[in-house]
Amino acid sequence: MNVSWPSVHPVAVAPLPALEGAIAVPRIRMKDMQGMPATVGGLCLRISQFAFAVMSLSVMAATNDFPSVTAFVYLVAAMGIQSLWSLSLAVVDVYALLVRRSLQNAAVITFFTIGDGITSTVTFAAACASAGITILISNDFNKCAENHCTRFETATAMAFVSWFAASPSFLFNYWSLASR
Amino acid sequence: MNVSWPSVHPVAVAPLPALEGAIAVPRIRMKDMQGMPATVGGLCLRISQFAFAVMSLSVMAATNDFPSVTAFVYLVAAMGIQSLWSLSLAVVDVYALLVRRSLQNAAVITFFTIGDGITSTVTFAAACASAGITILISNDFNKCAENHCTRFETATAMAFVSWFAASPSFLFNYWSLASR
Repeated sequence: MNVSWPSVHPVAVAPLPALEGAIAVPRIRMKDMQGMPATVGGLCLRISQFAFAVMSLSVMAATNDFPSVTAFVYLVAAMGIQSLWSLSLAVVDVYALLVRRSLQNAAVITFFTIGDGITSTVTFAAACASAGITILISNDFNKCAENHCTRFETATAMAFVSWFAASPSFLFNYWSLASR
Repeated sequence: MNVSWPSVHPVAVAPLPALEGAIAVPRIRMKDMQGMPATVGGLCLRISQFAFAVMSLSVMAATNDFPSVTAFVYLVAAMGIQSLWSLSLAVVDVYALLVRRSLQNAAVITFFTIGDGITSTVTFAAACASAGITILISNDFNKCAENHCTRFETATAMAFVSWFAASPSFLFNYWSLASR
């Protein structure tokens, strides 16, 4: 708590003295667990979401036959959404850390929670759909010779890692929304 | 709170007279939103999770060629887990409603939240994987003539509906865990 207390104040009355110095005092930071917005942990989560989403997108987009499977096209689209969202929130986190500003505001947290919920669901759906197809090609059909199985598997794994980093962000934001 | 109050107590103290009838009074229920455990809304969610999971399982298991695709086998397994979990919690809800007992206990809510989180994730993963395969068969390969596309689609849709009923249970439980 960065509240500065005045050095002199009345003795008898309960004076609420803290508010008199409120102009110079920086904003009060509520309980910021690591992993929440505007913490170093939160920034690390955002950066890893972004990095793995971009890796998944690049690996999948580098195969020449991904547009023939709907699930792979959906994976590319979902990774695009996830990387854009994570990059934006990483920038917000960097700004908040630099100016030492808390993002514990009901509207902001609600927006982050809904956005994180949607993007992480979309990412997980894309990863699961791609995993289903990849396993179908490699294990059930045994057609890895004529398909880019390794690339599909890599892209799918990166998508799962991106989701793994995205879901804590959602859970932290939802927790802080509920516990305020 | 099962605290028994002594029948004789000093007069000067604030006597909390309402508690003298505490034997006949039902247990105090904390803020129970509809949809939480031990509410009618929560019971409805559990029953719909169970019903749609069983429907999805039956429709998929009724096709003769589902074991050739890993994702469909996984769907059957996931729907089995989801239906067992939802049925158990529906029974707990019915019991809690009948004896008018609140389930707002930290350990109980934590257990429900973790269980709901795992089962709803598994259900959603199975639904997405099946959806990926179903779309691959029907749209990308156009092989509905030799496959049970309609049954696969029905089973996938039922799985999604079951997840749709399971995720509010998780969100409600997690919310009540965070806000206690």
